Amino acid sequence: MIQTPYLLFLGDASDALAAKVAQGIKDWRPDVSIGQFRMQGCKADMGIPDMSLAEARAAGAKTLVIGVANRGGVISAAWKKVLVEALELGFDIASGLHNLLNDEPELVAAAQTHGCWLHDVRIPTAAYPIANGVQRRGKRCLAVGTDCSVGKMYTGIAMEREMLARGMQATFRPTGQTGILITGSGVPLDAVIADFMAGAVEYLTPDNDADHWDIIEGQGSLYHVSYSGVTMALIHGGQPEALVLCHEPTRSHMRGLPGFTLPSLAQLRDTALHLAQVANPDCKVVAISVNTQHMAEAEALAYMVKLEAEMGLPTVDPYRQGAGRLVDALKGIKGRAVDPVGTHDPDMLPDA
Amino acid sequence: MIQTPYLLFLGDASDALAAKVAQGIKDWRPDVSIGQFRMQGCKADMGIPDMSLAEARAAGAKTLVIGVANRGGVISAAWKKVLVEALELGFDIASGLHNLLNDEPELVAAAQTHGCWLHDVRIPTAAYPIANGVQRRGKRCLAVGTDCSVGKMYTGIAMEREMLARGMQATFRPTGQTGILITGSGVPLDAVIADFMAGAVEYLTPDNDADHWDIIEGQGSLYHVSYSGVTMALIHGGQPEALVLCHEPTRSHMRGLPGFTLPSLAQLRDTALHLAQVANPDCKVVAISVNTQHMAEAEALAYMVKLEAEMGLPTVDPYRQGAGRLVDALKGIKGRAVDPVGTHDPDMLPDA
Repeated sequence: MIQTPYLLFLGDASDALAAKVAQGIKDWRPDVSIGQFRMQGCKADMGIPDMSLAEARAAGAKTLVIGVANRGGVISAAWKKVLVEALELGFDIASGLHNLLNDEPELVAAAQTHGCWLHDVRIPTAAYPIANGVQRRGKRCLAVGTDCSVGKMYTGIAMEREMLARGMQATFRPTGQTGILITGSGVPLDAVIADFMAGAVEYLTPDNDADHWDIIEGQGSLYHVSYSGVTMALIHGGQPEALVLCHEPTRSHMRGLPGFTLPSLAQLRDTALHLAQVANPDCKVVAISVNTQHMAEAEALAYMVKLEAEMGLPTVDPYRQGAGRLVDALKGIKGRAVDPVGTHDPDMLPDA
Repeated sequence: MIQTPYLLFLGDASDALAAKVAQGIKDWRPDVSIGQFRMQGCKADMGIPDMSLAEARAAGAKTLVIGVANRGGVISAAWKKVLVEALELGFDIASGLHNLLNDEPELVAAAQTHGCWLHDVRIPTAAYPIANGVQRRGKRCLAVGTDCSVGKMYTGIAMEREMLARGMQATFRPTGQTGILITGSGVPLDAVIADFMAGAVEYLTPDNDADHWDIIEGQGSLYHVSYSGVTMALIHGGQPEALVLCHEPTRSHMRGLPGFTLPSLAQLRDTALHLAQVANPDCKVVAISVNTQHMAEAEALAYMVKLEAEMGLPTVDPYRQGAGRLVDALKGIKGRAVDPVGTHDPDMLPDA
């Protein structure tokens, strides 16, 4: 677990998009985001107090979170000077960068000297099992998208918040770096070894109270050729009772793949549901979450009304409209009766 | 590349199944399998000459291949003694065990002293890219199964052999440990980091002559919840023109998953084809390969005649009947016209 509150390190972010990790944390954890640390030339601003390292420590900050991605993912000399100073002041540091904190001898030495933690959240921290497909108690909801980066994480966190506000039992289960930094734990699924992906999702969503919902963060898309294997492992490891379809209507092609068009929501519904029912025959598609950030209000609302009529599913942009109708769509869904014959025979495991 | 010829190390194999890696090598590479090395208590026999290490070296053997899997994948003290002696005699050693040769200080020291190689084929040897979905010249065929361990590798190698015998251009592309030991190279896909799986398959099946076929070794199954993500990455990274469906009719449940029944071949056909057409819209399902090893001859033949009529696809057991009709089924398939707009924009890559 990563200790809160956080001081968000924006470094010398070249634009607002470069600081999107910080943006996600500030949007969803304003309670723990007590300040931002910006260096000369920083072009991002979270709209929270600028603090020096010492000011933030005095205000109670425990972890400096790298909230910025830079080209190449390298930790520059200018950054390193700040990070060492933070460790000297007693901060832990958390990062989702490709360039690991723990690969930097100066940072490792300073952390040891001052008794601080370096959290590289891109690195799996557990020896995940191979998935066994055994049924777990409790209920699970997974967001699946027509493409990458269409709002699956935002949808999941918004649903968890709404459920907690209603007094339901719910836990958002992060599977990516930003989600892990927002909640303090999770599985960095894109960094897990292929054979253990589905097992890592089972590990992340264990047996629970019958009324408890895991809201699993989706990744990639079944229709995105670079990352579809990760999506597949989420569907089969998660054994969801409920799928929420996520879509961004203004995309002209799949993210990063200019030659590839997006699937229709009907195609996504049919393919994802068929594959999900392999792991959980009772799985249902319950709702559609649309990311309308690039549409004007009237256009967005008209689009969603039309889509809802076409698909026969509650359709909302949780960022514009709240997640209430997405949570309503889970009503009446029962968890699995745990199957006594579903026990796992380790001797039968493929030795692939 | 792993040097041939091989001496096959069977160790103290507890039964024939424990030596299935050696069996695969001996079945498909009798030309390079010049002998077997068996220790006291070994219950497997490849039917090739028993040789001491010195005899095999004198006969030209260059690599000692660990052809046996033991419980827990540990390299025992008794094995280690033999392996060190082999290095002293100038053998390279190749292994697909979980317990890595390169994690054993005694073996590493002996290999360095004697200038020999330790090949751990379970470890990826290249920094694979993230898949970009760009079309490559040449043609690709992938075997997909209703379950794990239904004969996908045997089907692929049998097809390559038949194609080479006909003077066609073809390369079997291994994606698992046994396949890599049979051919001397490949990608150990189950050990690749999730984000790079599909990219590893693109790397394995690069641009080629327009008439060349890559026969890609399949893994897992879209319907096997433990490994479906790996199968998905093969379908999207491989961009196959042709799919061969593989099936073992006597299975009562998915391998290692007692609670899970097998899909029908019609379900596999429809799901695999839809997902494959995301990466290559011209992909076709061309044939069915049945593993009838647990059926009597008459029963097997009757089953295949019936299945062929039902599915409308050439249906054979390549091990019983040869792969001729599977190769015939590829006739008339054209490779892709390489798409000038299919170029990859690295700035658009998701930073997942």
